[in-house]
Amino acid sequence: MDIIACIEGRTSVRVFKPDPVDDDIIDEGLRLANLAPSAGNLQARDFIVVRDAKVKKALMHVAYGQEYIRTAPVVVVFCANLERIAHYDQRGRDLYCLQDVAAAIQNFSLFMHSKGIGSVWVGAFDETKAAVALGTPAHVRPVAIVPVGYPAEKGMKRKRLPNEKLVHRDRW
Amino acid sequence: MDIIACIEGRTSVRVFKPDPVDDDIIDEGLRLANLAPSAGNLQARDFIVVRDAKVKKALMHVAYGQEYIRTAPVVVVFCANLERIAHYDQRGRDLYCLQDVAAAIQNFSLFMHSKGIGSVWVGAFDETKAAVALGTPAHVRPVAIVPVGYPAEKGMKRKRLPNEKLVHRDRW
Repeated sequence: MDIIACIEGRTSVRVFKPDPVDDDIIDEGLRLANLAPSAGNLQARDFIVVRDAKVKKALMHVAYGQEYIRTAPVVVVFCANLERIAHYDQRGRDLYCLQDVAAAIQNFSLFMHSKGIGSVWVGAFDETKAAVALGTPAHVRPVAIVPVGYPAEKGMKRKRLPNEKLVHRDRW
Repeated sequence: MDIIACIEGRTSVRVFKPDPVDDDIIDEGLRLANLAPSAGNLQARDFIVVRDAKVKKALMHVAYGQEYIRTAPVVVVFCANLERIAHYDQRGRDLYCLQDVAAAIQNFSLFMHSKGIGSVWVGAFDETKAAVALGTPAHVRPVAIVPVGYPAEKGMKRKRLPNEKLVHRDRW
């Protein structure tokens, strides 16, 4: 799929068909996710592919009951790795690794969309409880929960602010 | 350009031809940048397109002398808008708006690459000094400096960790 059509066509999808999404396609999406740039090429990001119903249900609960985390055939939890970014100290932990994970998620979502697969980026959850549900060590921070599946809804195209509101020239 | 070829082909480019990059193409890149998802669709991101030689030079200095900020024909500074994300309190300011900016940068870089234009994501700079150079208000945080231009180098494809090192199943 053309990059522009892909960026323009992607929407957040929260209602999924029960059809399975193969590991092959998830793994290819994660390989492409990790081709996003990262600070010092440290790739301070990890991916947890959740298919287990109990873990999905636990994640739904730590995300304040967002039902589509439970009903998606697969959920990918994107994590920042504070140990792998340690070289950059506080700026690494508080900024770079979060950016590096986010860029990876964007690659992943675009690729999924190009394959006719929907996803949604969930940020509203209790990180400490998510870490317990996933068994992540202290240096691994789950920062996004991304339910994935074949769409059973079209997904809404939400309005965006025009460039005039966001773009500045030379200085603010 | 195909999305997969685009993700696979993008590299960080730090040496640029002097050829100008039109505002039209920058603006189209920023429109596509802002099609990335954002928390609550709040779009807590702003873009400063820098062509002024003095501002570019100032940005180079706040970025510890990274020369390609001065030599790029155009530099886009991606900012997080803490006021626009205020609804989400601390998690909004410390996480969501940083993710929302990063996802936008990824869209922007991919589009630029599809047009034969190179870019590099610079995170190593003094934010406070960058804010002074750009005249940004207290609620606007410059979080990435992205020099942009037609490549005068191929850009190095850097090795990535294999999925086996990064992907976990169900739990850590």
